[in-house]
Amino acid sequence: MPPPPQEQGAEMINFGNGQPSLSLLPTAALRTATEDCVARGDASLLQYGENQGDAAFRASLAAFLTRRYAWPVPAEQLMVTAGASPALDLVCTRFTKPGDTIFVEEPTYFLALEVFRDHGLTVVGIPIDGEGLRTDALQDALTRHAPALLYTIPSFQNPTGTTMSASRRDALIAISRAHDLLVVADEVYHLLDFDAAPPRPLASYAESARVLSLGSFSKICAPGLRLGWIHSTPELLGTLMRSGVVQSGGGLNPFTSGVVRSLLDLGLADRTLDALRAVYADRSAVLCGALREQLPTATLVEPRGGYFVWVELPNDMRAAELLPRAKAEGVSFHPGGRFLSRDGFASAMRLSFAHYDAPTLVDGVARLARAIAGYGPAA
Amino acid sequence: MPPPPQEQGAEMINFGNGQPSLSLLPTAALRTATEDCVARGDASLLQYGENQGDAAFRASLAAFLTRRYAWPVPAEQLMVTAGASPALDLVCTRFTKPGDTIFVEEPTYFLALEVFRDHGLTVVGIPIDGEGLRTDALQDALTRHAPALLYTIPSFQNPTGTTMSASRRDALIAISRAHDLLVVADEVYHLLDFDAAPPRPLASYAESARVLSLGSFSKICAPGLRLGWIHSTPELLGTLMRSGVVQSGGGLNPFTSGVVRSLLDLGLADRTLDALRAVYADRSAVLCGALREQLPTATLVEPRGGYFVWVELPNDMRAAELLPRAKAEGVSFHPGGRFLSRDGFASAMRLSFAHYDAPTLVDGVARLARAIAGYGPAA
Repeated sequence: MPPPPQEQGAEMINFGNGQPSLSLLPTAALRTATEDCVARGDASLLQYGENQGDAAFRASLAAFLTRRYAWPVPAEQLMVTAGASPALDLVCTRFTKPGDTIFVEEPTYFLALEVFRDHGLTVVGIPIDGEGLRTDALQDALTRHAPALLYTIPSFQNPTGTTMSASRRDALIAISRAHDLLVVADEVYHLLDFDAAPPRPLASYAESARVLSLGSFSKICAPGLRLGWIHSTPELLGTLMRSGVVQSGGGLNPFTSGVVRSLLDLGLADRTLDALRAVYADRSAVLCGALREQLPTATLVEPRGGYFVWVELPNDMRAAELLPRAKAEGVSFHPGGRFLSRDGFASAMRLSFAHYDAPTLVDGVARLARAIAGYGPAA
Repeated sequence: MPPPPQEQGAEMINFGNGQPSLSLLPTAALRTATEDCVARGDASLLQYGENQGDAAFRASLAAFLTRRYAWPVPAEQLMVTAGASPALDLVCTRFTKPGDTIFVEEPTYFLALEVFRDHGLTVVGIPIDGEGLRTDALQDALTRHAPALLYTIPSFQNPTGTTMSASRRDALIAISRAHDLLVVADEVYHLLDFDAAPPRPLASYAESARVLSLGSFSKICAPGLRLGWIHSTPELLGTLMRSGVVQSGGGLNPFTSGVVRSLLDLGLADRTLDALRAVYADRSAVLCGALREQLPTATLVEPRGGYFVWVELPNDMRAAELLPRAKAEGVSFHPGGRFLSRDGFASAMRLSFAHYDAPTLVDGVARLARAIAGYGPAA
């Protein structure tokens, strides 16, 4: 829970925190789902599960995704995972070897870079613009590199909030086909639009090109479940399922998938997601409004979904240098440089609006404005 | 559930199946634990968890292990995992690189070999005997190799059922200290003794040498939970926690650890474990009795815990050649050769007694005897 109002001044407001507020977690819905699941008395949820994941759960998930994507999702194209991060790790284990080059967006999710580091991969960044991944730059980079995969966050990107346009998605898929490029699409924010769905997910191109789409209940329901899915063709999923870890441990989260099957079947997953979309739309508007009012010279593009606002500071102000001053004022964030494997984005910062209520977001921006005012001549 | 008696003859009896029977899964205990957990209403179980795992769960687990090991286990030496297989995968990601040599016991768990293959590791086998890992052979192998780690299953080994003696454990730890050898101890069967505890677990040497002990609720409670732990020093656990996958996803199974915390605190984990020990002791005795009666020329050492009996066929009979004949009789098993990365153990087979009730085990051995009788002159 957020701290009581009288203590807010004393607590650090950490815009770097990409977590939902505790108060947004669907405790009551999960209680209902858990009771429903337990009442089914299905002992098979306690057994080693099918490598692809429980068939009944996958059927419920396929129905949910078909509804939410407005695109048919067959259950045989879904493999259950323990969340997007373990899924990305498994993809690296099975589709890369150390020393391989991979492509990422520039900037990209900073902890994905740590997963790639663990696998000894050489990361090459492809720039993005307001329409997402620059496919011309991708085309160009492919003349110099033969990457094992491209990692992209097409909708409400982490960290920039940008969404790849429909024409860029088509262009990316055409390039993937032409170069046999494996596209790993981190689509965990895709369903979290505020008012209008993004172009169809890269998951929906699974039959047209080599696409592995990573989904998760972390952002649309509750991170602590550690439950997600990979959406792809049975052939590519087969490569993942033939891993030692899946063969040995069986399905990656049978017990929890039983609980979430009830959540899906009772309509509680839809209700939870829609409630989160409304709250995040409001929080995003509050944060962006406060930024425009209190930091009028900063640049931002208001996001249409997801968790993040990407802010460019004025006058070549360096976010990493601002950070200690900001912390002294009781506010924190991730400087832009963290989202790259090389130098750059020095004047940018990522702010998450998921963790705090509206008054706290406004208070955080006021602290940020004070830190910037004290930053010296550049401010 | 096992098939009804009149159908048993028609169903394959698969001694290769290293899973508990569905009827042994603690459905009622987990229902109680789930209700207790949900009634606590602790929203933090739905949040990204601490990288090391929920502190309250680790305290309950530490108390359980202290009691069951009869050896003090501090909660700060425990890190929560999604089971032993993901833990082994994570250890490989953080402590090895492709091309590294690692040591395993010969024979060893066949699916661990698949995890090592996924990480591009070169596997060198160290022989075992009735006292477990031959530390003289290990000492000798260390003159020729510099392994990244040794993988051992010290208690009720998979596949042989052998338990490493106390003096061998001491010798192994002395070698580990002398050579700075990382020992990865898969101790998932340790608590599953039938009547007498094995020598103290390698986990208990964590402060004396570089030991990572893998534990799991799969064999002592329910595989579908995908919940386990790594027991080691905070320093070695820190290397695992600084992985991209743990930093990104947070604690590896917060929701389920909340349920199992209730199971532990209500005494239901102890009760479940003791019930399983009694059932497996009985099933092991039944299987070994039937083998001695119906295959008197085969060699076996009756296990004192765990899941498996290792049987050596008489007259250099080859288990892999016997297998299709056995399947035609309605019985299956894992031939010895699967448990090695090279040729060997051709006349051995691993039989699991965990999955079937006593009449089915006896029936399976009868089918095996018929297959052997039809095997030709060697029988």
